[in-house]
Amino acid sequence: MGATGTVSSMVGKHDALPDSFDRFVEQVRALVEAWLSPWLEARVAEASARGPEVAVVAEALRQLVVRGGKRMRAVLLASAYIACGGEEVSSVVPAAAGLELLQAYLLTHDDWMDGDEVRRGGPSVPAALRVHFAGRAHGPSSADAASILAGDLAAAWALSAILELKLAPARVVGALRELGGVEQEVVHGQLLDVCAEERSEATVAEIYALKTASYTVRGPVVMGAMLAGAGADDARARALVEYAEPLGIGFQLRDDLLGAFGDPRATGKPLGGDLRKGKRTALVVEAMRDPLAAAAIGRILGQTEASEPDLAGALRALEASGARARVEGRISALALESRAALEKVPLVPFGRGLLAQAIVALTERDR
Amino acid sequence: MGATGTVSSMVGKHDALPDSFDRFVEQVRALVEAWLSPWLEARVAEASARGPEVAVVAEALRQLVVRGGKRMRAVLLASAYIACGGEEVSSVVPAAAGLELLQAYLLTHDDWMDGDEVRRGGPSVPAALRVHFAGRAHGPSSADAASILAGDLAAAWALSAILELKLAPARVVGALRELGGVEQEVVHGQLLDVCAEERSEATVAEIYALKTASYTVRGPVVMGAMLAGAGADDARARALVEYAEPLGIGFQLRDDLLGAFGDPRATGKPLGGDLRKGKRTALVVEAMRDPLAAAAIGRILGQTEASEPDLAGALRALEASGARARVEGRISALALESRAALEKVPLVPFGRGLLAQAIVALTERDR
Repeated sequence: MGATGTVSSMVGKHDALPDSFDRFVEQVRALVEAWLSPWLEARVAEASARGPEVAVVAEALRQLVVRGGKRMRAVLLASAYIACGGEEVSSVVPAAAGLELLQAYLLTHDDWMDGDEVRRGGPSVPAALRVHFAGRAHGPSSADAASILAGDLAAAWALSAILELKLAPARVVGALRELGGVEQEVVHGQLLDVCAEERSEATVAEIYALKTASYTVRGPVVMGAMLAGAGADDARARALVEYAEPLGIGFQLRDDLLGAFGDPRATGKPLGGDLRKGKRTALVVEAMRDPLAAAAIGRILGQTEASEPDLAGALRALEASGARARVEGRISALALESRAALEKVPLVPFGRGLLAQAIVALTERDR
Repeated sequence: MGATGTVSSMVGKHDALPDSFDRFVEQVRALVEAWLSPWLEARVAEASARGPEVAVVAEALRQLVVRGGKRMRAVLLASAYIACGGEEVSSVVPAAAGLELLQAYLLTHDDWMDGDEVRRGGPSVPAALRVHFAGRAHGPSSADAASILAGDLAAAWALSAILELKLAPARVVGALRELGGVEQEVVHGQLLDVCAEERSEATVAEIYALKTASYTVRGPVVMGAMLAGAGADDARARALVEYAEPLGIGFQLRDDLLGAFGDPRATGKPLGGDLRKGKRTALVVEAMRDPLAAAAIGRILGQTEASEPDLAGALRALEASGARARVEGRISALALESRAALEKVPLVPFGRGLLAQAIVALTERDR
């Protein structure tokens, strides 16, 4: 089965499903937006009834969520649901929306920890809240507290959204078990990312598996499988885990490459932005093994005011050291590994095609 | 039905249940400790496999949870479960343990926001983590990040613990819906507490309802009812909400009185501790309406170094203004309101007796 082109030949009984991956993505996005928009407005209304401070926090979250992102987690959940025999994508929209809210929670706490001011082309939630809340005499500022509470609120929303599913409760419970495990893994990964003293290649690999692969790919596809009625020890669920783990790492490695070499017009982020921010990505750790590259990169890593020529020199060093090519090679190998896992078990062909195309979308993207 | 003494006459078919409230409390506590202890050790082992930074965070949480507290939320959940027809307390232990983990999450984020160093006779989680994690060059310190992530981890644990229930999935889903609502309310309440500019009596009342009553009483009893098979629109569930809301406020008002007048030997907290910390409790807001009392209290409110004579003067002013007596009167009225709600609907008599005695335990306690 090819991973590109239309998949109309595999539609079979799914007459209501669109005939290509791109249209499926559009359909899922439209369903998720249509569900989230009034749902978030209702949450903001509840917050407004409490007081203006609460309303400001809920509104900052609402804006982050509607500003979007690629909704790839929602697409992966819906694809796995179809692949495991689910019929109506609309049945899993509250769970797909819940993953978007989970991401809002994680992004909000991450952005606060990392001091990131911009997210999805607008202010990050901590940056938005700093406008409204001042310092306090003691302890963290009100703006800090409001940022943490914004993340906590989004986490509560994620749970409540998923519980609006109308599917059999046993399936909902199965999906939530996966969610609980993913939430623990993401925190483990973030702790390693923020607090670990040394940063070996092994640590970076573990952070990617825990912090990105778990909630970007594994959680969504396992939840989709559970919602279609697969048990946790189902061969399909196990195969989807084998599909998800390399794909999640490949997704993050592509992110690393885009964060260094990505075209700012496509990514919306400055050239070499990750380097200036001092992110010790797998790409950087790989290149630093070469002493010449290490010197060039060391000159600008974490230097937000680094000069353009120094930045260009560091990017050339990433190339010349072979690090860029090796990371590209790893992405290709991970994509193959992910694709092979899809062939191990019987899946509904249309859904299998969606999952195969998701590999391309996540690992060959330019933004 | 009396709220004190044994309830052996109401045991009926519940032969395995203990014959008094105190023994029931002991039984629930013992079951919860026995469940939590190995469960938390398993979570710490998972964290240790990730790295020492992760292990330190998990261990700080484990210690907070095993150090205890009164486990009143667990007792309330179990009491409501029995009152709505549940038979085996052991069936709801994972949910009761989950409430303890939910509290660990909320206490950890609260203690970080409030700068509280001591909790349950030991270091608060943020204080414990500050020993292990240093500052960072930019943004919040690693200790700050680790404290927030500790709370996030406890929230994930709460969800995972509750999902270990072996009861019918529809009941679990019903209980989790209540949990999601409670989590939103607690965040709303904390936002008002930390970020609201003015602090009227109405604001204080709303904070108490949202921040304390919701997760201390309403969440536990509604979850207990759901786990016993009551629907959300069940008359029993509605009556339990009417029972819970005044009781939760009464509990917090008793806390306010203990925080000012409590015997340090019983509470483990210094005399007048809330005043020195600057907590604008309902008691304080009530007293401040009297200009004389306002002057005496204003002299020490938030002054951690206030002199003993000034503190004694403020406590006398709380008495002389009538504020202490009025708060005592409100607690009595709330307890009556709570008790009346129990009479509105048919409940299993033994469970009703437990819930009635819980009113006494929560509103007439000395620690």
